[in-house]
Amino acid sequence: MIPLRGIPELEKGDDLAALIVEAARAAELEDGDVVVVAQKAVSKVEGRVVDVSVVEPSERALELAGETDPRRLEIILREAREVLRSRPPLVIAETQHGFVCASAGVDASNAKGPDTLVLLPVDPDASAALLRERIGALTRTEVGVVVSDSFGRAWRLGTTDVALGVAGITALLDLDGQRDSLGYELHATQIAVADEIASAAQLVMGKTDGVPAAIVRGLRLQGDGLGRDLVMPRARDLFR
Amino acid sequence: MIPLRGIPELEKGDDLAALIVEAARAAELEDGDVVVVAQKAVSKVEGRVVDVSVVEPSERALELAGETDPRRLEIILREAREVLRSRPPLVIAETQHGFVCASAGVDASNAKGPDTLVLLPVDPDASAALLRERIGALTRTEVGVVVSDSFGRAWRLGTTDVALGVAGITALLDLDGQRDSLGYELHATQIAVADEIASAAQLVMGKTDGVPAAIVRGLRLQGDGLGRDLVMPRARDLFR
Repeated sequence: MIPLRGIPELEKGDDLAALIVEAARAAELEDGDVVVVAQKAVSKVEGRVVDVSVVEPSERALELAGETDPRRLEIILREAREVLRSRPPLVIAETQHGFVCASAGVDASNAKGPDTLVLLPVDPDASAALLRERIGALTRTEVGVVVSDSFGRAWRLGTTDVALGVAGITALLDLDGQRDSLGYELHATQIAVADEIASAAQLVMGKTDGVPAAIVRGLRLQGDGLGRDLVMPRARDLFR
Repeated sequence: MIPLRGIPELEKGDDLAALIVEAARAAELEDGDVVVVAQKAVSKVEGRVVDVSVVEPSERALELAGETDPRRLEIILREAREVLRSRPPLVIAETQHGFVCASAGVDASNAKGPDTLVLLPVDPDASAALLRERIGALTRTEVGVVVSDSFGRAWRLGTTDVALGVAGITALLDLDGQRDSLGYELHATQIAVADEIASAAQLVMGKTDGVPAAIVRGLRLQGDGLGRDLVMPRARDLFR
């Protein structure tokens, strides 16, 4: 795990792939490397930033806001497909992509000011694919890309980083039919390797250090997985 | 992340710490290393193994089993404090420790035969503390220990490894009051670093490779966290 330091504060339209390649110069990107990029960095260069000062909160936003800024809740409701639980000001919502997370992924920290909110990318898999393509063009290497974000979990405290967007690697490693070291068949075991890669990278990226990307090297997980492979289909979901 | 290979199939009473130290000889354990050990390895040396052939299934076990072995369900029910959801033969249960997971942590794969089930350790934090102490005595190093297991998640497909037992490191990294790189305060952000360490280690331990332990080096997370710090208290839990 190699943190990529020295990436400046990002603006809409910045060439994030080029900045990553520049920051990775000392580590020299290799075929099979996985480049993990914080969602917030991706969202900023894609212009997924909202100024709440121009937002008019709805009745529902006022209800859910409790003592907090209802304009923030209004933005969250616009990003949400469904609110699963709320305890003001906490909202657990399903995003338009199908992710279930706090505040429908809307986040304030690291943004440009108290009135600025950062939204999730519109299509994190497309964001990952574009970064992978551009990094490939700049370095002639075949890397994987994971766009990561910190999600809370049911039943457990604290956040772990998960993969919202994936390109060039397996996202869900299927062990169905594989046998363990004693010869017993492992039934329908799937490992969310892309989420584990995001979590591993978080350990070197931190949250306050301004390190928006890291390389995870040596995994041999080349494949064509997607972040959306990791979203549980509603029909299989026991917790809605 | 350094996988520890060459640890043999384990039996009740084996000196797991000594086997880990032996397997880690090439890597030379260092102060601050985190040794991640698969729960199943710990359970086996602690004798947390059950022969289902002597078990009489209850009515409830017969109901929940569907087409599968009701004796397995009987063991799961004995391990469970509460069944949260069931769709035969899948059971999501809260264990006596407060963990919410499939089959109350009861697992067959890697065990000694089709009639043998492996249960979670009675007290994974005590297991981790004991391993830490014994590794320290053998090597004169101050390592952290994480006892890990693969858990499914609500809303997301696939398993990621989490920390059941922790010793010698921070489990939940509290960023409350810390400021990000632009000076904004991060409110009540807690990172489940012990879970992220377990996930990172899983990437090199695999599930079919017979690698029951790994070293995660370079994190500087020395502390006195516990696996039970990561269990969400019922009062805060929106998903029961």
